[in-house]
Amino acid sequence: MTAALTDFARLSINDATTQNWTLAEEIVGYAARGIRSISIWRDKLAACGRDRAVAMIADHGMRVSGLCRGGMFPRETAAERRAAIDDNLRAIDDAAALKAACLVLVVGGLPGSSKDIAGARAMVHDGLAAVLDHARKANVKLAIEPLHPMYAADRACVNTMRQANDLCDALGAGVGIACDVYHVWWDPELESEIHRAGRDRLFAFHICDWLVPTQHLLLDRGMMGDGVVDIRKIRGWVEATGYAGDYEVEIFSAENWWRRLPGEVIEVCKERYLSIV
Amino acid sequence: MTAALTDFARLSINDATTQNWTLAEEIVGYAARGIRSISIWRDKLAACGRDRAVAMIADHGMRVSGLCRGGMFPRETAAERRAAIDDNLRAIDDAAALKAACLVLVVGGLPGSSKDIAGARAMVHDGLAAVLDHARKANVKLAIEPLHPMYAADRACVNTMRQANDLCDALGAGVGIACDVYHVWWDPELESEIHRAGRDRLFAFHICDWLVPTQHLLLDRGMMGDGVVDIRKIRGWVEATGYAGDYEVEIFSAENWWRRLPGEVIEVCKERYLSIV
Repeated sequence: MTAALTDFARLSINDATTQNWTLAEEIVGYAARGIRSISIWRDKLAACGRDRAVAMIADHGMRVSGLCRGGMFPRETAAERRAAIDDNLRAIDDAAALKAACLVLVVGGLPGSSKDIAGARAMVHDGLAAVLDHARKANVKLAIEPLHPMYAADRACVNTMRQANDLCDALGAGVGIACDVYHVWWDPELESEIHRAGRDRLFAFHICDWLVPTQHLLLDRGMMGDGVVDIRKIRGWVEATGYAGDYEVEIFSAENWWRRLPGEVIEVCKERYLSIV
Repeated sequence: MTAALTDFARLSINDATTQNWTLAEEIVGYAARGIRSISIWRDKLAACGRDRAVAMIADHGMRVSGLCRGGMFPRETAAERRAAIDDNLRAIDDAAALKAACLVLVVGGLPGSSKDIAGARAMVHDGLAAVLDHARKANVKLAIEPLHPMYAADRACVNTMRQANDLCDALGAGVGIACDVYHVWWDPELESEIHRAGRDRLFAFHICDWLVPTQHLLLDRGMMGDGVVDIRKIRGWVEATGYAGDYEVEIFSAENWWRRLPGEVIEVCKERYLSIV
């Protein structure tokens, strides 16, 4: 049995969790509550300004567990695929400026009206291959996030840890995995594929919970402990690899957690981090 | 490229598709529209009465492609698991009376407040093992239906064709698979696991479509052609095994198809069967 966590040294909050705060408010508000790590979405980064964000993060003694998100490689036309690659190159530069532990990749689903999921997966491979050299030179790790199969059509056609590991095998150093319990908890191969990924390939570990019933495919994630995921068991599998990164809370919850005061949400995250994670 | 279908000889309608008809109305209404095969849910069978259903099906020259559903094996207590097994034994008897091509099994999810999905999967194995002898003697095929991973918690903890094949390997003859494109279309191992299942293990093939966006986790399935599933490609993989069973349309659609006149829905099914499936 994996022991409970006893402090917040490795707790990161993904800033989608505090949807109604700006990035500046988050840096101040997280730091004031003893959170040392943040994961940042690019829209909030753009609204804040990159230089200001970098300075504020340094001033508050924080680190960045991830930048969300690159990816979205499959597109209908070559010009659109090129634009996606350019956008990923800019995301890599942002991640480098933030000294982010990784750039999280939501790889993209079926382009346009396509029904060719194998073709989309090939575009993901090719898109990753096209940006990998730039990422390596910038010292930015690319973290493929396998998304739950219910997002295969519209968000990510990489849906299991096995697929992500296979992509890493094909692409080589610099490409790894962001493992989010929400997306992979159901997978009978989860333990073996976490082991296969190992410390060198596990770039991020995201936590929240799967609610029963789930009311909305995208915006009804649960707080740790409110659902059915055995988060501590999965954390044990991750730690068995030697993973030394952060435990990042990411909760999309339009009808519940996003309606509460962000400071209150962080306090609940902290409480559940000790009792559940 | 798999050729289009040219007649309705192998078209079956799962009677959940015509939610607002009784079983008697379905037998008459399907037969009148040239449908020769029906898949029946047990609640409608009970409302009709088994003897009457058997007689009506024979009178209308129809066959039964499946009885829905057995399964739901994981339960919190031994007494509840025993009751689930007893219910499956009755379902097997019903399937035998109907001469159904198979009893479709929705195996069940996490029992009670459990977070132990491996334990639930073990209960599925044990439940199947407990009813298999009765099924063999009754000459009823047990078709495990891998359900989409979004149902892992509350409906079925068997979520991929690989898992279903592994269970079949463990249990032996008489246990096979109901392959529903809605649940498995995203799986990168789908083609290889259909091949692995083969003709002897593919007891049913269900069709509908995955809509983008999907509005509800359970009740927003699409008509063939309205979503992103390459149904014809998957049918080609199934036919390559030598599968000679029916192609069964099963659409749960509270806000669209269930609100239309059932006769109209069947006509659309037939049209799409030729143009899309």
